[in-house]
Amino acid sequence: MDEVTFAVLGTGGIGRRALEVSQHKDHLTPVAACDRHGTAIDFDGLDVDELLAATEGNIDNEVATDGGERTDGSRSSSELRSDGGSGATTTESGDGVKQHGEDRGVVASEQARASDDPIQDVIDHGDGIDAVLLALPNYEHDFIPRVADRFLEGGYSGVLIDVLKRSRVIDMLDERSEAFEDAGITFICGAGATPGLLTGAAALAAQSFVEVTDVDIWWGVGLKSGYEDNRGTVREDIAHLPEYDIETARDLSDAEIEAIIDEHDGVIEFEDMEHADDVLLERAGVCDAEDVTVGGILDVQSDEKPTTTTVRVTGRTFDGETATNTFQLGDETSMEANVNGPALGYLKAGVRRNRAGEYGVFGPAELMPGF
Amino acid sequence: MDEVTFAVLGTGGIGRRALEVSQHKDHLTPVAACDRHGTAIDFDGLDVDELLAATEGNIDNEVATDGGERTDGSRSSSELRSDGGSGATTTESGDGVKQHGEDRGVVASEQARASDDPIQDVIDHGDGIDAVLLALPNYEHDFIPRVADRFLEGGYSGVLIDVLKRSRVIDMLDERSEAFEDAGITFICGAGATPGLLTGAAALAAQSFVEVTDVDIWWGVGLKSGYEDNRGTVREDIAHLPEYDIETARDLSDAEIEAIIDEHDGVIEFEDMEHADDVLLERAGVCDAEDVTVGGILDVQSDEKPTTTTVRVTGRTFDGETATNTFQLGDETSMEANVNGPALGYLKAGVRRNRAGEYGVFGPAELMPGF
Repeated sequence: MDEVTFAVLGTGGIGRRALEVSQHKDHLTPVAACDRHGTAIDFDGLDVDELLAATEGNIDNEVATDGGERTDGSRSSSELRSDGGSGATTTESGDGVKQHGEDRGVVASEQARASDDPIQDVIDHGDGIDAVLLALPNYEHDFIPRVADRFLEGGYSGVLIDVLKRSRVIDMLDERSEAFEDAGITFICGAGATPGLLTGAAALAAQSFVEVTDVDIWWGVGLKSGYEDNRGTVREDIAHLPEYDIETARDLSDAEIEAIIDEHDGVIEFEDMEHADDVLLERAGVCDAEDVTVGGILDVQSDEKPTTTTVRVTGRTFDGETATNTFQLGDETSMEANVNGPALGYLKAGVRRNRAGEYGVFGPAELMPGF
Repeated sequence: MDEVTFAVLGTGGIGRRALEVSQHKDHLTPVAACDRHGTAIDFDGLDVDELLAATEGNIDNEVATDGGERTDGSRSSSELRSDGGSGATTTESGDGVKQHGEDRGVVASEQARASDDPIQDVIDHGDGIDAVLLALPNYEHDFIPRVADRFLEGGYSGVLIDVLKRSRVIDMLDERSEAFEDAGITFICGAGATPGLLTGAAALAAQSFVEVTDVDIWWGVGLKSGYEDNRGTVREDIAHLPEYDIETARDLSDAEIEAIIDEHDGVIEFEDMEHADDVLLERAGVCDAEDVTVGGILDVQSDEKPTTTTVRVTGRTFDGETATNTFQLGDETSMEANVNGPALGYLKAGVRRNRAGEYGVFGPAELMPGF
């Protein structure tokens, strides 16, 4: 495969770790990184070590449960607004966001410069950027789609890839499918851990069967730094609890969130989560969305996973047997490893598709063998 | 995805079951099937039920251990010779091949006609055939490559796909890579169970890691019909035992093979098999070939799998942990289900690549997210 250049939009948890993981990958060069305050661009390849060190303080609560979404209302220095960014370097604090470095955000790096419109900076250099990883907190359901609109309007032609989680976002992207095709954009959606790695595993495990009756995705996450630093994730996950939704969870105060966590003794179990694995498997023809269930256990007080992340695919073989194929992630693999490795893997696959002239919206399962 | 038409070369175990499984697949139409005696072609779609019923007696010992290779010297009615076929309908018997029906081979079907050169028949109709599944016994290591040469010489442009097993065959196909590219052929090699499904699973499981240190593939096969009907498979597997190779195994008499089986009480364990998973993972950049081990247990006296087919991928994450991701096939999935489902899945993926203008040689791992 030829060399691949990529940009990260957002230098929070996902964006920074994607840069870090890319250092281990051949033929993959990060050439741009931005947040709402500024942009770092270097077509010889960013100095990732310098950039990570300079933005260390930007690790905030947008770390997400195996997927990369953040829905809480707090705005950190690492975010990037789809309306073009404020350009301001005011010193908002609060919500447990660590604040290191003289400047806030990517402009703390000597490779970056302040910008009123970082997305446009990336678009303006788009000819040299094969893929853009949208490592953005997804405050609202249409946040990623609106960012995509910026790239459409800006005339970008290449790969856009996200690690979003919610099923309903896929439909919003699908509405833009024709526009992506016209623009020459290959949009890879839901390419983190779940959806992402586990969706792909389900699509592959399905190959033994002629009919898939159940896909059961069950994840375990132990957050390394405890829940203090990860309220955004916890807030997002609380939105999946039966008594909350994304709006009510956003309105919870930190004290209320901590009270909910305490009620659960720090270990919260989720059932029937709205994860896009369902629609992504359906659009690949593997099974009906309703046959997919996603749940898991989040332990915010331990680094150990409270349960082993497991995908179970049950189906019927052509010769009439019913069986279950299983994919399990080793307990020592962190959420970060399982999000960012696959994201870059799917990014490479997306670039290959894009170079072959395949445009539109693709989910992870569509990048697997056909069903 | 658009409609896909395909042909099977060989109507033995693999070919017949591929036809059967395809009946469960949307957008996949079998339009041609041939063996060395004749060809059935119908662009409205073959009547698979009729063809399977008519060729029922062609189930012989080329059923292979999760892969589709046969190396014994016996020639059955379902084989197809790469030199063009004899066209004769002599009644060779022997070697345990069942002989049902008035005619031998595919010509027993009312959809087929006798042919002196069935491969050329398929090539002559190649414009309407998106993919050709080489469901052939691989008597010699260069058998599949030589069949590919026929398609190159004949001017076919489309997908060729095989379910071969031996590592060394991949190199022979690679030597033809440029010719495939010039011809517009996308050659998918090693796309059965192992290599194939399990190779893909290994490539996907690798995504959690920045370095893969070990891939361990361990299969279990319980042959439904006992070893009497599957001497070809047993012979091929015996070639993997330390004291044999493919040539010496071919020279064994049936009595000698049975003696070896009896020595093992009907359950033969294999270690360090020459399965192409190793070179196929290396060419996808996942790990070094030497880090891949393939072994398994063949129980020729039981329908139950003697062990659960398992892929273990061990690696190092970007954050310094060592872990093992695991993929397991349900014990109730037959070898046939795990070969033919993936073969058709990779076939669809290959057609997609071909239509996008990607030609040359691809292994299963190259059809996964990049590493």
